[in-house]
Amino acid sequence: MTFTYKNVYLNDAALSVGPYEKDGPLRKYFDKTYDDLYFGCDSWEKAEVKLIKDSLDILVKKTKYKKGDIDLVISGDLLNQVSASTYGTSSYGKSFLGVYTACASSTEALIIGASLIDSKKINNCICTVSSHNMSSEKQFRNPTEYGAPKPLTSTFTTTGAASCLLSNKKSNIKVESSTIGKIIDYEQNDPNHMGAAMAPGAAYVIHKHLTDLNRTPDYYDLILTGDLGMYGKEILKDLLIDEYGIELSDNYNDCGIMLYDLKKQKEVHAGGSGPACSALVNYGYILDKLRKKELKRVLLVATGALFSPTFVFQKENILSIANAVSLEVV
Amino acid sequence: MTFTYKNVYLNDAALSVGPYEKDGPLRKYFDKTYDDLYFGCDSWEKAEVKLIKDSLDILVKKTKYKKGDIDLVISGDLLNQVSASTYGTSSYGKSFLGVYTACASSTEALIIGASLIDSKKINNCICTVSSHNMSSEKQFRNPTEYGAPKPLTSTFTTTGAASCLLSNKKSNIKVESSTIGKIIDYEQNDPNHMGAAMAPGAAYVIHKHLTDLNRTPDYYDLILTGDLGMYGKEILKDLLIDEYGIELSDNYNDCGIMLYDLKKQKEVHAGGSGPACSALVNYGYILDKLRKKELKRVLLVATGALFSPTFVFQKENILSIANAVSLEVV
Repeated sequence: MTFTYKNVYLNDAALSVGPYEKDGPLRKYFDKTYDDLYFGCDSWEKAEVKLIKDSLDILVKKTKYKKGDIDLVISGDLLNQVSASTYGTSSYGKSFLGVYTACASSTEALIIGASLIDSKKINNCICTVSSHNMSSEKQFRNPTEYGAPKPLTSTFTTTGAASCLLSNKKSNIKVESSTIGKIIDYEQNDPNHMGAAMAPGAAYVIHKHLTDLNRTPDYYDLILTGDLGMYGKEILKDLLIDEYGIELSDNYNDCGIMLYDLKKQKEVHAGGSGPACSALVNYGYILDKLRKKELKRVLLVATGALFSPTFVFQKENILSIANAVSLEVV
Repeated sequence: MTFTYKNVYLNDAALSVGPYEKDGPLRKYFDKTYDDLYFGCDSWEKAEVKLIKDSLDILVKKTKYKKGDIDLVISGDLLNQVSASTYGTSSYGKSFLGVYTACASSTEALIIGASLIDSKKINNCICTVSSHNMSSEKQFRNPTEYGAPKPLTSTFTTTGAASCLLSNKKSNIKVESSTIGKIIDYEQNDPNHMGAAMAPGAAYVIHKHLTDLNRTPDYYDLILTGDLGMYGKEILKDLLIDEYGIELSDNYNDCGIMLYDLKKQKEVHAGGSGPACSALVNYGYILDKLRKKELKRVLLVATGALFSPTFVFQKENILSIANAVSLEVV
């Protein structure tokens, strides 16, 4: 489903990150950075909660709202029971919605928030996502102490929290339209190649968004997928041509590649991933370029792999989805 | 946040359940029942997915829609990575939103769906939730083979899937208003007493809903909390008087008590729980009473405990939330 919006604006954002993101090429866009993965907490899960609280504290300070002035907080993350979100955001806002479409949760939150503001049901909302490299590794993969080597197609879970404020108060960045994705089963089953797993969801939603609004890719200065990584990015381009006859050119990039220096930061392999990955690029680097009018129309396509370790052990496929949000300078 | 709706209707619902629910007092309201917990599948997780598919198949048949006619599927469940929902609903609908506020997910889905229909962004949506006694026990508690005894305050996870269709097509049941809950930290920490953990979230949202709409409890023929169970129900009544000066009387009940025969079905201890618990009562028994006009105004208050086993091991409190939806006969 594709929606267009009349009076929804992205007002501001705040980003907190860990050491790998600080060492990457986008460091100057982050509000708070840490040099280790604990941030003074006694577990990685609590550290992820701290990242969220940091980003919310900085955001309300920047926007001059008080904690309780926020109509709604919409949040999602990868931890079981979406628990970084619930513990991290609990003292903010008048109400809370938990969302989950894995790494596509950031744009799911934007779509729900923008739709409620557009229909005048709320005045403002904060959309938050987080991920933490070690809390994710511990939960999804081998015990971290094993230090199991990974194939080069694997991606590296981003450590960070990204929060943005949407409201009906005018800023120079409008949330112009959005397309909610569909769950695609492309018979993928390699949890070490998430780019391949998620590309079909991204291809579908890009096609659907452009078709519904009668646009071609060159309508946008930049189309930005979530966290497909260096191999997934190429797979997406091929899929879009093969399945939908849509050709992406130089105005296409992937957040998983942009967040790290893939040549120097060898540990990230094919690129970044996790709900925070695309959100850090979108609410940091992209927000800055929109504010400076160096970009005027951007399509954010956060991509999510829908599976669980349990279902992968039980030989089920990895499903995918992506949600698209269009931002325009006004 | 409280919203009122003009043209949103609950058109129909379909319910599939396991053996304990079939043996309970509400058996005649269920569309499909099973006598074991596997339903021909080779894992409990796949069995939960099958329950969802059953309820969706029956619902589209009842409503005479085709699978692809559904604008949006909104779904949530307790499995890690909300995976029963993603695997169960993947072949239905034009788009998908995953939600998570634990056992309050059913009313979270209704609120998002009703708000999108009310603002004419979509024409219809299916809201689905599920839970499975054994997939939950395996994930949240001791290995099921231990057969660890539980205190009498513990609740029993419902095995079932409940799907309902909301749309702008008139039926005699209107989704009249809703209130999104807030995360409450009441310093609860006993995972074997979820009623106590969730009562504060329920008290807050009932107070907020009544205050925002300038109503008293007697506006409703029935106020129905999610799954507080027999002890949680009494705690809620006390909390509402002590904290908000609101007295609930005979027009208040709890779905966790209604779904089972607590005198005969001793294994359920304090009552039912899980996202499906309140949804089975609401979309089964309550829908029937509204259709027959034996009830005319009902407030559904699904209640959720926000925590994870990991955070409980790390000595964090169990947080709570509840989301309220008002249904009225027109």
